[in-house]
Amino acid sequence: MKNTFGTSVTVTLFGESHGPEIGAVVDGLAPGLPVDEEFIASRLTLRRPAGRISTARQEEDAFRIVSGVFEGRTTGTPLAILIPNRDTRSGDYQRGPARPGHADYTAYTKYHGFEDYRGGGHFSGRITAALVAAGAIVIRALQGKGILIGTHVARCAGIDDAPFTDLPADLEKLNSLPFAVLDETKGQAMRDAIEQAAARGDSVGGILETAVLGMPAGVGEPWFDTVEGVLSHALFSVPAVKGVEFGAGFAFADMTGSRANDPLRMKDSHPVTTSNHNGGINGGISNGMPLLFRCVVKPTPSISLEQQTVNPLTGENTVLEIRGRHDPAIVHRARIVVDSVAALALADLLALRFGADWLASPDD
Amino acid sequence: MKNTFGTSVTVTLFGESHGPEIGAVVDGLAPGLPVDEEFIASRLTLRRPAGRISTARQEEDAFRIVSGVFEGRTTGTPLAILIPNRDTRSGDYQRGPARPGHADYTAYTKYHGFEDYRGGGHFSGRITAALVAAGAIVIRALQGKGILIGTHVARCAGIDDAPFTDLPADLEKLNSLPFAVLDETKGQAMRDAIEQAAARGDSVGGILETAVLGMPAGVGEPWFDTVEGVLSHALFSVPAVKGVEFGAGFAFADMTGSRANDPLRMKDSHPVTTSNHNGGINGGISNGMPLLFRCVVKPTPSISLEQQTVNPLTGENTVLEIRGRHDPAIVHRARIVVDSVAALALADLLALRFGADWLASPDD
Amino acid sequence: MKNTFGTSVTVTLFGESHGPEIGAVVDGLAPGLPVDEEFIASRLTLRRPAGRISTARQEEDAFRIVSGVFEGRTTGTPLAILIPNRDTRSGDYQRGPARPGHADYTAYTKYHGFEDYRGGGHFSGRITAALVAAGAIVIRALQGKGILIGTHVARCAGIDDAPFTDLPADLEKLNSLPFAVLDETKGQAMRDAIEQAAARGDSVGGILETAVLGMPAGVGEPWFDTVEGVLSHALFSVPAVKGVEFGAGFAFADMTGSRANDPLRMKDSHPVTTSNHNGGINGGISNGMPLLFRCVVKPTPSISLEQQTVNPLTGENTVLEIRGRHDPAIVHRARIVVDSVAALALADLLALRFGADWLASPDD
Amino acid sequence: MKNTFGTSVTVTLFGESHGPEIGAVVDGLAPGLPVDEEFIASRLTLRRPAGRISTARQEEDAFRIVSGVFEGRTTGTPLAILIPNRDTRSGDYQRGPARPGHADYTAYTKYHGFEDYRGGGHFSGRITAALVAAGAIVIRALQGKGILIGTHVARCAGIDDAPFTDLPADLEKLNSLPFAVLDETKGQAMRDAIEQAAARGDSVGGILETAVLGMPAGVGEPWFDTVEGVLSHALFSVPAVKGVEFGAGFAFADMTGSRANDPLRMKDSHPVTTSNHNGGINGGISNGMPLLFRCVVKPTPSISLEQQTVNPLTGENTVLEIRGRHDPAIVHRARIVVDSVAALALADLLALRFGADWLASPDD
Repeated sequence: MKNTFGTSVTVTLFGESHGPEIGAVVDGLAPGLPVDEEFIASRLTLRRPAGRISTARQEEDAFRIVSGVFEGRTTGTPLAILIPNRDTRSGDYQRGPARPGHADYTAYTKYHGFEDYRGGGHFSGRITAALVAAGAIVIRALQGKGILIGTHVARCAGIDDAPFTDLPADLEKLNSLPFAVLDETKGQAMRDAIEQAAARGDSVGGILETAVLGMPAGVGEPWFDTVEGVLSHALFSVPAVKGVEFGAGFAFADMTGSRANDPLRMKDSHPVTTSNHNGGINGGISNGMPLLFRCVVKPTPSISLEQQTVNPLTGENTVLEIRGRHDPAIVHRARIVVDSVAALALADLLALRFGADWLASPDD
Repeated sequence: MKNTFGTSVTVTLFGESHGPEIGAVVDGLAPGLPVDEEFIASRLTLRRPAGRISTARQEEDAFRIVSGVFEGRTTGTPLAILIPNRDTRSGDYQRGPARPGHADYTAYTKYHGFEDYRGGGHFSGRITAALVAAGAIVIRALQGKGILIGTHVARCAGIDDAPFTDLPADLEKLNSLPFAVLDETKGQAMRDAIEQAAARGDSVGGILETAVLGMPAGVGEPWFDTVEGVLSHALFSVPAVKGVEFGAGFAFADMTGSRANDPLRMKDSHPVTTSNHNGGINGGISNGMPLLFRCVVKPTPSISLEQQTVNPLTGENTVLEIRGRHDPAIVHRARIVVDSVAALALADLLALRFGADWLASPDD
Repeated sequence: MKNTFGTSVTVTLFGESHGPEIGAVVDGLAPGLPVDEEFIASRLTLRRPAGRISTARQEEDAFRIVSGVFEGRTTGTPLAILIPNRDTRSGDYQRGPARPGHADYTAYTKYHGFEDYRGGGHFSGRITAALVAAGAIVIRALQGKGILIGTHVARCAGIDDAPFTDLPADLEKLNSLPFAVLDETKGQAMRDAIEQAAARGDSVGGILETAVLGMPAGVGEPWFDTVEGVLSHALFSVPAVKGVEFGAGFAFADMTGSRANDPLRMKDSHPVTTSNHNGGINGGISNGMPLLFRCVVKPTPSISLEQQTVNPLTGENTVLEIRGRHDPAIVHRARIVVDSVAALALADLLALRFGADWLASPDD
Repeated sequence: MKNTFGTSVTVTLFGESHGPEIGAVVDGLAPGLPVDEEFIASRLTLRRPAGRISTARQEEDAFRIVSGVFEGRTTGTPLAILIPNRDTRSGDYQRGPARPGHADYTAYTKYHGFEDYRGGGHFSGRITAALVAAGAIVIRALQGKGILIGTHVARCAGIDDAPFTDLPADLEKLNSLPFAVLDETKGQAMRDAIEQAAARGDSVGGILETAVLGMPAGVGEPWFDTVEGVLSHALFSVPAVKGVEFGAGFAFADMTGSRANDPLRMKDSHPVTTSNHNGGINGGISNGMPLLFRCVVKPTPSISLEQQTVNPLTGENTVLEIRGRHDPAIVHRARIVVDSVAALALADLLALRFGADWLASPDD
């Protein structure tokens, strides 16, 4: 399916960094969902670069919905969102040496040089604005069913944020923060480290931790379309994500079964687990506990330090100094994208499980 | 697609732990691929439990291919493999308390109690035998195109194996070992730790590291069907896998861009990278370097220590002591499954890129 | 997806005419559906050749379900059905001249000569036995929701059967008949014509007409996954089907809009149409009226008259006299297959619309 | 996949009759294909209503491509085309009685009244402009590989056009005609009949016949993804198409096998058939002969004659007189849409068979 994701609720992405418009088509949404344009705008604002720790490129992100919404609600037919690219400065970019850590060389190989290379073209993080707009509609709809999503910068430049301790209040707090941390002193330390990296012409990476509350039990498949498999498939589309773990994740390697297993207890007539090392998923299927997952975001590959590379056109070794506007870290911006793709993937699983109208159905 | 994975090369799984037969259907294989039944048998042997560190359940794994092979080669039409379950002792299992860390409760919720609960039913690791048989055919075919896959137990019970240093020789070595480590002294220490866990009635987890050599550049899609996304989607079907990382993976969190970026240099007229922190993938697309990824395998949830849990049928709290035959670790057995699902997922991406016959085409 | 059809309810086919077993995997069935093995057997009997108007090949069709059923009900996990091939006489077949009207030449071209050519291999009508077994389970489940399917031989060898006039009684009658016609005198005339064709070494074609009663309104999509599109996609897999029409079908060409439009009237508080030229579908979506469609089945290509053809292996012109066992008509056997694939396709659309459990849910 | 069609080459549609813009996203096109905007414009012109036999609505169809094209060629990444709706007169439409033969009632049922009902909303034939624009790019690309597509009005209002007799010249002729017939005297008679129907406030239907030349042999799958199945799935999205037949189609019902079978002969070292009753497809797979298929297009449901219907909102019987701008026939406009969806579906099958770059590869 290539640039389309999902089965019952699908999202199709298009656009390039320096093209006239980028966009997304979301299909399969239940009819009658309220579409809150202010909320979409607020999510796009959170994705946008801010201050000294981000690229100087400023986009107004004046999205417009051209189909699938009528009188403020989803119609159930494909919803297309377009976002114009206004502040493009193509002069900054020319086909030249492949930027290490970027898709320049792989795009050149796959597309035989026909790709739009300007600003990374279709590979640009810019395209995530369309994902965020699409995701915002779904995030709002999930809220209507009591399903809440939030992500914090769990680690950046070697500094750890505080863990989730107060759900769902933590999520509410995060969703209003431009730099999403639970402990603001740690957030300040991270931002200082990002600025220092920027000053050196370098960049830093980090880890995002996401919680999804209110996910019904019994969603997902035992093989292949496991909740982990479907979510990770989507999450690796968030640019720079190179690892995804659920629950205890890689820490399971050093745990024993007696510690790793989550004991079950009855609570209010429902089974719950007293720990959540499995991140709300057993055998690929949601168990009703919070979904917990973490994504690692690699350091922004665009750095201004000199780098060794090749020019694919000429097949010659060369040295690269990247100019233009770049982020010394993207982990704090990526969290909005992580929320968005997670929401889209979960909406698809829920629609497959409970039917196409479920997301707009009254609470049980 | 549920229990089917893939687009051009697909695999469909079926079967339960205590049913008469399990199996897989592989469709979309290029016609004319040699089918080496001895190789399939050898892969099944490597998956089978061995000695004191594994379950006492012994299956002969006498597979038979009932379609899709004619005169020793693939026909190009669906290839069905069946493996009988012989050594089933259903008396060991009854519907009872949900085993913590297992799919018992989620299966009960999803299937409303109609699931075959015996031995974990369709969720059993037993089903992976069919995946391994299917994967063996594809692994052989990939070899024919110079694409080699191998996995070692990179960490188990807190003990690290040596890293890959001598590719492709390391892979050849691993593929003949029942307990796949690069440093056999470390392997012995791991097995000792597994036995000690077993003696305590407990279990341990670990990390698998996989290398794929010879993967052509230019495979994968920029969004959604990234190489990472497609591989991880498949890998999370390997029972107990709870995290997947590519290249430096979670270590990217503490790296700077200047270190994380892989410099490019020309070698034999082709661009190569002088490091491989990105694990052979940039922008979702293979770059021609070795694919490198790691999966964490949680400790086997079946332990004989007493555990707190609930009985979903009665909705009551209870205490569970698991009897029956179980593995104190599965990381060493899972590596064959990891190879298999990776091979199936890559074969699909390759067929989409280069056409349905590519896998059987003569070398360029 | 190749030999897999469907999205939420899927069917995967495998097997060859002269292999050891053929089979189907049905995935995504709601858990808890009764599986009536006698009903499956009775449907297989109706598909089987009977008497002088069919091939002398006799198969017992002793199917076995190896997964997905537990204590007489579907589990919700993949259901695999296997049917052994017993009465194979491979001596009748060798790779030789391409049989005109068959897939011999196209299979040779697509699979480069690696296909199992014996008895048509994977292209054989024999494979439909697995479809019929799979379909039987779904047909029964649809009955449980008040959705009834039946097909009659509307035309054969130039003879028309009576039209549907008494639904649902007509369907009940058809489902018990080995040669499904509404007017038995027409049925006798058809059978006589088939025997006469057989005596001449020739074969005849026909038209099947299907009615589906009780289909809920609001199922299907406006573009691409229209009810017509999804059904026809599946129906063209019934061997020898070369045309599919809905409602008035090709007769629309000579109608005016004032006649073709189906007037709407309220009946028991629901809108109904007073005619049904649109076959129960408007804009790709079911309208609650009976689904009506017709499939043309071409004359069996296996005839014993001498035919001009080529030998793909040698690239030479030649003359062919087909020996072996063949049907002088298949239209009367194909009707069971039409019912089956229609049931599978509709079950998929219904599950996508109303959720994975709908088929097993209690009546509203 | 709902409003997305295809696997390797996909098309996603969006938009409503009276929304600001409609559009399509085509993904999976080979990189480097020339994009001829004049040709796209000329196809859109052929789709547009013309003269007295069509609606008075005039759209300039000023499409713009916002992604996926760079320096005049496809990039290989998603290509989005947008077409603004300019001449919308929403005042003509209000939610009211369901128009018989239209999707009004089914849309209301499926979308619970949240659909954009103005001018048929997402169900409007207007949306086909986006399909035509998308199809034009693919038609041009297929031409580059020697694959030619053309459709004529084979029958309209009871008048038959001449059959194809001079291929490929016939196709070239058709592609330049606003009203595509092979015999212009028949075309004039059809147009007269259409005008007469319009004068009566009524409408007429017809049959479209399509030929595809140069299709390589060996494309398509034996089950489910047969060429017939995939094409028909797409063709039933052309509004008003209610039947699709291949080769002799429904005429097979009255043929004998000895007449229906197409004899094979060697010609220029390739097997060809001396007749083409199978329409270029055997066993679901192309045989290298021209693909031939016919679609029936029902009479336009929008007529100005008084009709009996219901108002779904009130649940009351009522009488409807449709005002606004409507086509007394759409068969002549639909042919461009048929070409387009056929091209998209075939491009997908070809890319699956021969690889993602095939369409842009130099001739063999």
